[in-house]
Amino acid sequence: MCGIFAYLNFLTPKTRKEILDYLLNGLQRLEYRGYDSAGLSIDRHLNNGVMLFKKQGKVAALKAALIDYLEDGCEGSYEDILNCHVGIAHTRWATHGPPNEINSHPQRSDPENNFLVVHNGIITNYQDIKKYLEIHGHRFESETDTEVVAKLAAHIYSQNKELTFRQVVELTCQQLEGAFALVFKSRYFPGECVASRRGSPLLVGIKTKLRLAVNHVPVFYSKDTKSRRGMEQNTLRRETSTEFTPLGEDHSTEYFFSSDASAVVEHTNRVIYLEDDDVAAIHNGNLSIHRISRSMDIESPDWREISTTKLEIQQIMKGEYSSFMLKEIFEQPESVVNTMRGRVNFKNETVVLGGIKDFIPDIRRCRRMLLIGCGTSYHTALATRQLLEELTELPVMVDLASDFLDRKTPIFRDDVCFFISQSGETADTLAALRYCKSKGSLNLGITNTVGSSISRETDCGVHINAGPEIGVASTKGYTSQVVSLVMFALIMSEDRLSLQPRRSEIISGLENLSEHIKQVLQQDTIISKLAEELFQKRSLLVMGRGYGYATCLEGALKIKELTYMHSEGILAGELKHGPLALVDEMLPIISIITRSPVYDKCMNAILQVTARGGKPILICEEGDTSTEELVPGSTYIHVPHTVDCLQGILTIIPMQMLAYHMALLKGCNVDCPRNLAKSVTVE
Amino acid sequence: MCGIFAYLNFLTPKTRKEILDYLLNGLQRLEYRGYDSAGLSIDRHLNNGVMLFKKQGKVAALKAALIDYLEDGCEGSYEDILNCHVGIAHTRWATHGPPNEINSHPQRSDPENNFLVVHNGIITNYQDIKKYLEIHGHRFESETDTEVVAKLAAHIYSQNKELTFRQVVELTCQQLEGAFALVFKSRYFPGECVASRRGSPLLVGIKTKLRLAVNHVPVFYSKDTKSRRGMEQNTLRRETSTEFTPLGEDHSTEYFFSSDASAVVEHTNRVIYLEDDDVAAIHNGNLSIHRISRSMDIESPDWREISTTKLEIQQIMKGEYSSFMLKEIFEQPESVVNTMRGRVNFKNETVVLGGIKDFIPDIRRCRRMLLIGCGTSYHTALATRQLLEELTELPVMVDLASDFLDRKTPIFRDDVCFFISQSGETADTLAALRYCKSKGSLNLGITNTVGSSISRETDCGVHINAGPEIGVASTKGYTSQVVSLVMFALIMSEDRLSLQPRRSEIISGLENLSEHIKQVLQQDTIISKLAEELFQKRSLLVMGRGYGYATCLEGALKIKELTYMHSEGILAGELKHGPLALVDEMLPIISIITRSPVYDKCMNAILQVTARGGKPILICEEGDTSTEELVPGSTYIHVPHTVDCLQGILTIIPMQMLAYHMALLKGCNVDCPRNLAKSVTVE
Repeated sequence: MCGIFAYLNFLTPKTRKEILDYLLNGLQRLEYRGYDSAGLSIDRHLNNGVMLFKKQGKVAALKAALIDYLEDGCEGSYEDILNCHVGIAHTRWATHGPPNEINSHPQRSDPENNFLVVHNGIITNYQDIKKYLEIHGHRFESETDTEVVAKLAAHIYSQNKELTFRQVVELTCQQLEGAFALVFKSRYFPGECVASRRGSPLLVGIKTKLRLAVNHVPVFYSKDTKSRRGMEQNTLRRETSTEFTPLGEDHSTEYFFSSDASAVVEHTNRVIYLEDDDVAAIHNGNLSIHRISRSMDIESPDWREISTTKLEIQQIMKGEYSSFMLKEIFEQPESVVNTMRGRVNFKNETVVLGGIKDFIPDIRRCRRMLLIGCGTSYHTALATRQLLEELTELPVMVDLASDFLDRKTPIFRDDVCFFISQSGETADTLAALRYCKSKGSLNLGITNTVGSSISRETDCGVHINAGPEIGVASTKGYTSQVVSLVMFALIMSEDRLSLQPRRSEIISGLENLSEHIKQVLQQDTIISKLAEELFQKRSLLVMGRGYGYATCLEGALKIKELTYMHSEGILAGELKHGPLALVDEMLPIISIITRSPVYDKCMNAILQVTARGGKPILICEEGDTSTEELVPGSTYIHVPHTVDCLQGILTIIPMQMLAYHMALLKGCNVDCPRNLAKSVTVE
Repeated sequence: MCGIFAYLNFLTPKTRKEILDYLLNGLQRLEYRGYDSAGLSIDRHLNNGVMLFKKQGKVAALKAALIDYLEDGCEGSYEDILNCHVGIAHTRWATHGPPNEINSHPQRSDPENNFLVVHNGIITNYQDIKKYLEIHGHRFESETDTEVVAKLAAHIYSQNKELTFRQVVELTCQQLEGAFALVFKSRYFPGECVASRRGSPLLVGIKTKLRLAVNHVPVFYSKDTKSRRGMEQNTLRRETSTEFTPLGEDHSTEYFFSSDASAVVEHTNRVIYLEDDDVAAIHNGNLSIHRISRSMDIESPDWREISTTKLEIQQIMKGEYSSFMLKEIFEQPESVVNTMRGRVNFKNETVVLGGIKDFIPDIRRCRRMLLIGCGTSYHTALATRQLLEELTELPVMVDLASDFLDRKTPIFRDDVCFFISQSGETADTLAALRYCKSKGSLNLGITNTVGSSISRETDCGVHINAGPEIGVASTKGYTSQVVSLVMFALIMSEDRLSLQPRRSEIISGLENLSEHIKQVLQQDTIISKLAEELFQKRSLLVMGRGYGYATCLEGALKIKELTYMHSEGILAGELKHGPLALVDEMLPIISIITRSPVYDKCMNAILQVTARGGKPILICEEGDTSTEELVPGSTYIHVPHTVDCLQGILTIIPMQMLAYHMALLKGCNVDCPRNLAKSVTVE
């Protein structure tokens, strides 16, 4: 998980200061992807070569060092106007080699900085390439896998100086194995920028003064010997001028390359998402997209759409919100829709998950499913286990990734294993995946991060599309993970006649989910009042059973993470086997009691609590007055009624809000809780 | 779970007061089996009929009411001497009908108390019998299943007044289905007592002044048409005088009937354990044992041995200990040996579990094993899961019984399900068992209670032989459950050549287990000092992983149950995913860190805690100075090193002791924690 950002201004005069601000600001937007070191590259004063500047630590450290360095004026004025310029920048999350200046990106071909590259992902065959290049006299300075890319490009160019920048990159990428998004800058090709990707995400943002006259960019093929449309096309076609050229009188254009849209949306909402093995080149202000050969897939179009990104700048800014976490809580009506977009057809009641559809027959033949995750992702597994058992009638095991590994659990060829991780990089989950791969099971990833290790190394998977989650405590990530697994369960049961009424009920629940979440969010005032009552308590229990159990564990975890209060989720059925001894008038017990088949058993547990002087706080259904009458004088938080297997999505949201308000009252930083980190990439 | 106690003094003059004291004292010993109501029956003054006295509540309530009632002398003097008398008594744990006086036992045939019966178990066909008897004019007064037994006996006797008391009971029991232990008293047969059992345990204690000259009692068969020994025996044999007759000049004899030996040992250690369908009758001071027909099993002897019970009065008395719990903690060096006695041959390295040996081939063919329990029994499942996975190479699922039921988990014919419950009566576990039976799986019970519902309704099982556990918080029950499942794992792997070194290592660990536990118990002073440091803290974490994880959960549960302090067991691998936020200088964190394969990962977690100012308390291995050097200034509790899968038995004991000492310092009742009960027989 690193962040790439590049900026090219063509016939758009900018001061060096403006360009640096663009680059640094872009990196800061991507910083949640990694922040152990950062670097950038711009042209030197008077086109006197290329400057490389790197620093260990966060982007702020890079910025401070840059200001220091540039202030003495030896690199020319901060206010120099650059008419046409390419700058590339990177914020790093270390994989190969510790975070230090040498290992930071951009990596370079040589001390002259002839070729510079920023990279996201892992080059798996870098050792072989390194050996080859060392034989040819290249000296390596860093411990990274990335350095071979810059040196290989320089090596290829040195063999044939006739090559264009784009051709150099094409030939370079053909030698690479692994996953990457790469953006190149070269001293030999001023004002030009070339990028490519495989596995890791990369997009191009386009900004023009006038409205764009086209909404797509054609793709050119190097080896286009045979047209699908039966028409002979010659390989010279790529030399024609049908590449993307901004129309109109004003040719000024700005281009952005970025790992994700969050760094681009403040400049433009017109983006092209590159596909695997696309090479995007900007030459003379024009963008062209190239591929070695036409894909055999009839569905793959001959152009790349210039889409209008739905990502709003608000999505990656706190905006009106005081913190990312609060924003992400309130985003959930949209994020669950994004998870379902293009996948659930509410009219026909069909569900398609593109990422796994080819594997469905294999999955249906399996003997057992395993859901593996850590922390919140483990709670996702618990929240959906029952539905998976019901709709697949297969045994479903859930496991904490670390315990799974400690036990060396037996895994068989006819097992299907799910690896759930928001970041897709969680170390224990990734290690569990690798263990399962060695045992020959079919492995699925459920992640929020395209190109992450888990999404790359699994056989197939579901991208939850929740949008960037920046708060360390997961909120929308959890609800979207649950929705993803519910969709999967629906697919598994689509051919079962007897399950059709159940499927219809769930699909209708999904259709109303966004509206229901909005209703829950309206309880904010009641919840913030409750937070005032609770925030100074010593500890807290959250109790429920059935589909409510996962909410208890996840809700207690949120409170633990954010408020540092000792909270614990307990299964209502286990109350009598121990936790009931804790109950007295002092201990707050939040109880999830919705109208599911386990309602009566839940109510029994609540009445045992009240019989012993406990004061439960109820999360119950809107209008369920009979429940309120049974537990008079309690605090009630209302959620709308929905189908049992989705009720957990509605009950977790008040817990997220409660944890948020309590943390605020305690003066804790909700986005960066003490001792924790967003993506746990150590075991 | 009810308690039966009966006392017959033949030619042994006792005052009415002495007899009542015997009965009440017997009930009090059995009270841990149930205590919602109690009752007894003795003869009225001057043989003027039979008195029945019942009371809701504990035995103490019955005693107080009796003293009140008898004091006015209308029933004759407290000091009346009775030369030959039968008293029966019962303490109830309600199954059919709420606990009140009418539903208490003894149940009677009619207002004259002509036939009285005390019953342990459930008569499943009582509705049918009730209908039959109602047609014949009998009026029912209680909601119990037991009342039909007394009325049926009276009905049978009314049809043929020639029948002996024993014959009446034989004919009655032939009509009963279900599980029962029954003791009868009748106005028509003064000085006689008849008992029978099926499923529920029952024993006869014999006390004579002189040493017994015989060590067995022959069995008589009603339908003994063919002798196994090839010798014709006529049915009149039962009329011969080979029944048990105390020899010697002094014919005075006392007999006791009891659900378990604990109520008898203070009077005598000579007991006969009745077998299913035995009818034991005392007539004229002589005991005879009868059966309808000879068992087809060649192994079944023609006599019942008068055994010398190994149960010492100390076992059911607190003795030198201030509480049952402390006693049961300190009994563990013996109780684990009792669990293994006659099962593990340390010389040949073989293990035999009589209760399941016929099912081993079926179990070996299974596709999956499920371990199901509640509370401590669930922790047993977690503690042994890894070993079962390792030695069977089968998928092993563990489930909390209530969650298992809520989810309606898919169960298949080729599954083997284990139901773990100390009492054998835990409602959720029992319901899970019945669910699995309906799905056709092979079901095993792991209980401490012969004749309990779970041991009756499973296909086979292991009795853990830990001896009566009276403290509500389980201690020796847990360690013996773990040993039982370890023995099972050893059996499953006996034929695997590659696993022989591992088996040897484990069997040698079992051999030394008792000695190792004794060493742990010597840490008492250190632990009580630690308790002084901890007992006023707000909350407590217990952290570990691998085989230490179950200890964390179980240890935290002990502290919760006994001290009402919020304690939580956490998996060290999950620390970074949330709980680490709780860590500061104030929070005590007990860490289990033994030299297992997960040692390094555990140590990483501990170092993360110390890095954030936390002060972990270590449960580590004797002599492991390098661990202590890594975490200087901590409190260390030492356990001896043993094989990884048994280490959890040694690490849980300090946690039990710690919970005990903390509870004492807080002034809590360790044997009867608030809000809890020993055997949870409601869902």
